[in-house]
Amino acid sequence: MTLTEKAAQLGSVNAGALFDEQGHLDEAALDDHLSNGIGHLTRVGGEGSLSPQTAAERTNEIQEYLREETRLGVPAIPHEECLSGYMGPEGTTFPQMIGVASTWSPDLLAAITDNIRRQLEAIGTAHALSPVLDVARDLRWGRVEETFGEDPYLVASMACSYVDGLQGDGDGISATLKHFAGHSVGAGGKNRSSVSVGRRELRETHLFPFEAAVRTANAESVMNAYHDIDGVPCASDSWLLTDVLREEWGFEGTVVSDYYSVEFLRSEHGVAADRQEAGITALEAGIDVELPYTDCYGEHLVTAVEEGQLDEETIDQAVRRVLRMKARKGLLADASVDPETASEPFGTETATQLTAQAARESMTLLKNDDDTLPLSGEELETLAVVGPKADDPQELLGDYAYPAHYPEEETDFEATTPLDAVRARSGDHGFDVCHEQGCATTGHDTDGIDQAVDAVAAADVAIAVVGARSAVDFSDAEGDDDRPSVPTSGEGCDVVTLGLPGVQQELVERCHETDTPLIVVVVSGKPHAIEWIAEEVPAVLQAWLPGEQGGAGIASVLFGEHNPSGHLPVSIPRTVGQLPVHYSRKPNTANEEYVYTESDPLYAFGHGLSYTDFEYGDLSVSTDELRPSGTVTAEVIVGNTGDRAGHDVVQLYASAQNPDQARPVQELVGFERVHIDAGDAKRVRFEVDASQLAYRDRNLDLAVEAGPYEFRVGHSAADIVASASFEVTETKPVPLPERTYFTETGVSDAER
Amino acid sequence: MTLTEKAAQLGSVNAGALFDEQGHLDEAALDDHLSNGIGHLTRVGGEGSLSPQTAAERTNEIQEYLREETRLGVPAIPHEECLSGYMGPEGTTFPQMIGVASTWSPDLLAAITDNIRRQLEAIGTAHALSPVLDVARDLRWGRVEETFGEDPYLVASMACSYVDGLQGDGDGISATLKHFAGHSVGAGGKNRSSVSVGRRELRETHLFPFEAAVRTANAESVMNAYHDIDGVPCASDSWLLTDVLREEWGFEGTVVSDYYSVEFLRSEHGVAADRQEAGITALEAGIDVELPYTDCYGEHLVTAVEEGQLDEETIDQAVRRVLRMKARKGLLADASVDPETASEPFGTETATQLTAQAARESMTLLKNDDDTLPLSGEELETLAVVGPKADDPQELLGDYAYPAHYPEEETDFEATTPLDAVRARSGDHGFDVCHEQGCATTGHDTDGIDQAVDAVAAADVAIAVVGARSAVDFSDAEGDDDRPSVPTSGEGCDVVTLGLPGVQQELVERCHETDTPLIVVVVSGKPHAIEWIAEEVPAVLQAWLPGEQGGAGIASVLFGEHNPSGHLPVSIPRTVGQLPVHYSRKPNTANEEYVYTESDPLYAFGHGLSYTDFEYGDLSVSTDELRPSGTVTAEVIVGNTGDRAGHDVVQLYASAQNPDQARPVQELVGFERVHIDAGDAKRVRFEVDASQLAYRDRNLDLAVEAGPYEFRVGHSAADIVASASFEVTETKPVPLPERTYFTETGVSDAER
Repeated sequence: MTLTEKAAQLGSVNAGALFDEQGHLDEAALDDHLSNGIGHLTRVGGEGSLSPQTAAERTNEIQEYLREETRLGVPAIPHEECLSGYMGPEGTTFPQMIGVASTWSPDLLAAITDNIRRQLEAIGTAHALSPVLDVARDLRWGRVEETFGEDPYLVASMACSYVDGLQGDGDGISATLKHFAGHSVGAGGKNRSSVSVGRRELRETHLFPFEAAVRTANAESVMNAYHDIDGVPCASDSWLLTDVLREEWGFEGTVVSDYYSVEFLRSEHGVAADRQEAGITALEAGIDVELPYTDCYGEHLVTAVEEGQLDEETIDQAVRRVLRMKARKGLLADASVDPETASEPFGTETATQLTAQAARESMTLLKNDDDTLPLSGEELETLAVVGPKADDPQELLGDYAYPAHYPEEETDFEATTPLDAVRARSGDHGFDVCHEQGCATTGHDTDGIDQAVDAVAAADVAIAVVGARSAVDFSDAEGDDDRPSVPTSGEGCDVVTLGLPGVQQELVERCHETDTPLIVVVVSGKPHAIEWIAEEVPAVLQAWLPGEQGGAGIASVLFGEHNPSGHLPVSIPRTVGQLPVHYSRKPNTANEEYVYTESDPLYAFGHGLSYTDFEYGDLSVSTDELRPSGTVTAEVIVGNTGDRAGHDVVQLYASAQNPDQARPVQELVGFERVHIDAGDAKRVRFEVDASQLAYRDRNLDLAVEAGPYEFRVGHSAADIVASASFEVTETKPVPLPERTYFTETGVSDAER
Repeated sequence: MTLTEKAAQLGSVNAGALFDEQGHLDEAALDDHLSNGIGHLTRVGGEGSLSPQTAAERTNEIQEYLREETRLGVPAIPHEECLSGYMGPEGTTFPQMIGVASTWSPDLLAAITDNIRRQLEAIGTAHALSPVLDVARDLRWGRVEETFGEDPYLVASMACSYVDGLQGDGDGISATLKHFAGHSVGAGGKNRSSVSVGRRELRETHLFPFEAAVRTANAESVMNAYHDIDGVPCASDSWLLTDVLREEWGFEGTVVSDYYSVEFLRSEHGVAADRQEAGITALEAGIDVELPYTDCYGEHLVTAVEEGQLDEETIDQAVRRVLRMKARKGLLADASVDPETASEPFGTETATQLTAQAARESMTLLKNDDDTLPLSGEELETLAVVGPKADDPQELLGDYAYPAHYPEEETDFEATTPLDAVRARSGDHGFDVCHEQGCATTGHDTDGIDQAVDAVAAADVAIAVVGARSAVDFSDAEGDDDRPSVPTSGEGCDVVTLGLPGVQQELVERCHETDTPLIVVVVSGKPHAIEWIAEEVPAVLQAWLPGEQGGAGIASVLFGEHNPSGHLPVSIPRTVGQLPVHYSRKPNTANEEYVYTESDPLYAFGHGLSYTDFEYGDLSVSTDELRPSGTVTAEVIVGNTGDRAGHDVVQLYASAQNPDQARPVQELVGFERVHIDAGDAKRVRFEVDASQLAYRDRNLDLAVEAGPYEFRVGHSAADIVASASFEVTETKPVPLPERTYFTETGVSDAER
């Protein structure tokens, strides 16, 4: 390979640039971009808004050109976005990931990403830029919705399932773990802001999910983050990208740059004087491929080698990784797909059922006083539905969902809205539905509130569907604070308040002033500061951004067809000024209170109500003296003491009682989602390896420390109902091969 | 010395415990606490609320007992609190330190602490637990008022002057640098919360002032902080307390514990199983003396040595440090003072003038549209004064001011309130003053607002004196959100919002609705989120917590007797959700904006208006190629183009244009407060050593890096009006002896 051919393997091209307006390959563009080959193809179908068949055809055309018309004949790796479903026309939109995390069901997530994999494979994609493994700790951040929440163990568990489903048996779609690392805690909650963390916190909180997914799920790609950590931009951080990722963890896949982040070394961080220096810096740090197109790599790297500023072996090493991935994916043998069958995995009954199940199971019931829910259709005469999230399909979607990124009229996207779903049930039950939107998600327009209040006052029960819009701003009046439907969630949409946007709080308060019982459904990708609502309104459902079947999911819970089982993957604060509120703060942070305001969040991590009751027996542990290379089994009997079947999520927390370093008050070490019929009981078993209790010692080495520990089970991190103690008998370092990441769980029938 | 005698030197006793109710030494208590000697005496006068004469007498009695009745005859080190003045009866209360920092006048601060030193010396004190060197970055923190603001260079400059004045010629009062280290950035803005910072940020931001004060001002004591940094409690952090402080910086004084922080290793951080382990851990880490009394040291350390858990040499080393300090203070020769003359330095004309000057010069004029200020007494007929900070002496005080810590009826404290001072001017000018408080600082009571609005409506001009109360809560209705006068600033008073407490915002808005021009004076220890006020109200004065002469200081600015010259030592954010907003964020943090909200603060660091105008000429630099062991001189001519004399604060910022690590957009490297008559001009010279441009490289070593740099001068960090570039010619490590901390400045007459 020539140096130019090698450099080309480390770049990408936006596929759209290769076609003319008639959709034919453009010879000049091919010459410009592909004549020496190319590493990646950026978003053929998604960016191009192509049907699956056309996406497959164009991918084939490009791959054929590369195979036939370039000297080496090496096809490209086509990559797409697919966080909550393939981000392109006809892709199924599943709930946004914060909602999927609320199911605490890794198996369901693996089934979802298995489905996503089939859609991507059909159009010729080989690589996808998800999942997001950032551990959400600052809720001002717009991308909280993309995460699996605040807890490293839950994030790691979901992440590994995501990777499993997407990568299939190893020949599926390469998953990309992102954003490496610490992207969730930028200063001020902003997307690309500097990150202040020490190395212990970085490793234990932010790197843990990446380490688990690299070492147990064989994730094939990693993407760097935009920000700097303590002054070192991640795109230039050889400690992170090479020492830790490759040398320590043994990662053998490719590291791809977050879009434009190599160039940001120059234009944003200022640590590179020009694009060539940016390219050298990123490549030497460990970024193999520059995305979305070749800006600082390519000819800049060729020049750098020619000028003696870059060792060609550094290029060779990255090229070997890219070619190895191409070989492993079978692209070198056959990169073509069959356009005729490309649309088959799209819009299937399986996909629809899966996204409906995920929506249902993500529903997290926060409050339900006086058995306000479920609604009895038979007893209802008139039901009022108000709020800006009640009847707009786009309002159900998260960022990186394809139909959220285009004006409604440009996509064929349809979804059953909450209003549709409620109306669909009115006929069976014989009640009337009255709908008034009341207000938009954003803006100051209160003109519609009176009508909404009138509708509520005239109804037996009212449902206010409120929340925040995600993704893209289609209004063109930038800077006007009065615009309706401005996204306050999603990438680049960071906020200074967690209150409901616009005048929605006023809408809710006015509706609550009537005598009509009010149910608030929050449709949002992050927790909102709903302290007033939680105090005043009898029932509150957190519905997240539930995707194309979200309306049905909401209605199925409201009417009791589905017994809610979602549990919070992230604590809900009382106010933005209280952040951070995650349950695993250290005792000095967790216990100290503000003037007027408690330290505790409004709703704790793990909280979620059911229409039945679950009771826990004593927690038993298999040993009270744990050798640091042994395991300890914890068991608890969970009884369903209510009158309907349901799913419980049993949460196991560990707490070091006399650690050598200051530790979180407790940390999740296992969980199990379990179905129990009314009146029945199950025995839930957790087998915890001693290495899971390890933490970074004073020298930042991983070790299990001798001393007293406690296991706890509860309905949430704040509602612990049983605990058991044991002693670790000696301190022992944990070499990486001996590290266990996940607890084995088992469920069996039991008597209460 | 016996082991018990040695251990006693590492402890303290609350002096009050040694006297019976009649004020006589209690033999049993002496036996219990002093029979083996003692290291420190805790707050004889301050905690005891004793007159200077009685404090001197009791100190003498205790010292005499130690000298005469203990085997070794070694007197104790009596310590007191004195942040904004001796915290005891009759101590002068100067403005809280955030206000003193607003003067940008280290010389004034040295004069203040010289005065404090005389008062402390008179009562027999040898050691004081101030200044606070924490760099304020999270404004939710209650202790922001105790700091010198957000900038390491300004903090270091003020800190060194504080130490200089307090320590005198070396035989004065030992200053204690606190809280070591990073105390200002606890998670959630809470006082003892965990701190997340990397080592580069820790060193460059938080350690810089400590390093400067240890190495240039010879501070004799350091106090650890309560929190943990990345899991390591500061009280157990041998890297911080020994490796950095002593081995690297050469500190030879004593490290004292923040009150109770040794015990907190057990009860809060959980890293010690019992008091003995807490004592061993703290001593081994580098804490020499346990304060306020002997809880984990003393007998626990004796037992630890006897049981072989602690090397006696570790005790010996700490004892040597304590005895060395006693010798240096002259306590071994003579620890007595003359009670007859003890009250002489108290309440002097000098002290009163100094605190009045500091109050005046701390006044920071944020906004002055339409020349609303200064008020012309001649043109006024009726002036309305409203707001809860207008007429309460305690509302002028900060935390650690003695009279702020006792109910008003228990102290003789008197102060001219803003209302008093305005009234004092009404006679001369012949206008009427109408006062209505309107509301309390806190609570929900709006009953008085109507009357205040009526008073404002009937006046020509109105002044609303609003803000937050500091220090101690004297109400006993804990948990009742409706209490008036609850402190929302001061230690332990951390908050989730920066809005004006209680219903003060409503008071201001209602007053503004009248046609009467409104001037808002904010009396508070931290910035409040006053975006609405800054937009709507024509004049806003930030008066900080100005101390016993604060009322006069406010009035002197309002009526133009003093031309305001305060400049913000801390940026004022728009809202709490925008934190952090300090000017020295890195570009990726500074430039990224929120949905609806700018990244920039409402008022920038360094901002402060005058009644005259200052204009800057070009900035010239002495070289455009700086050798990394050289100096560069920057000069600017500042003209007073208005019609009255005044003080300007000329600010010099440096910016690395192509650094190796991501750097702040700019950093303060010099400042000069300069008086210029109307129509005159001054040449201000800054001589910057190349080592001042150094920062921590990838390996955390200090080095000046080759590359382009820029110097900038401006009226604030956001209002840069001139700049000049130069190039550092080569990269060079900076060994500690070669490090320069402060810029030499000079002022000479000039022509514009």
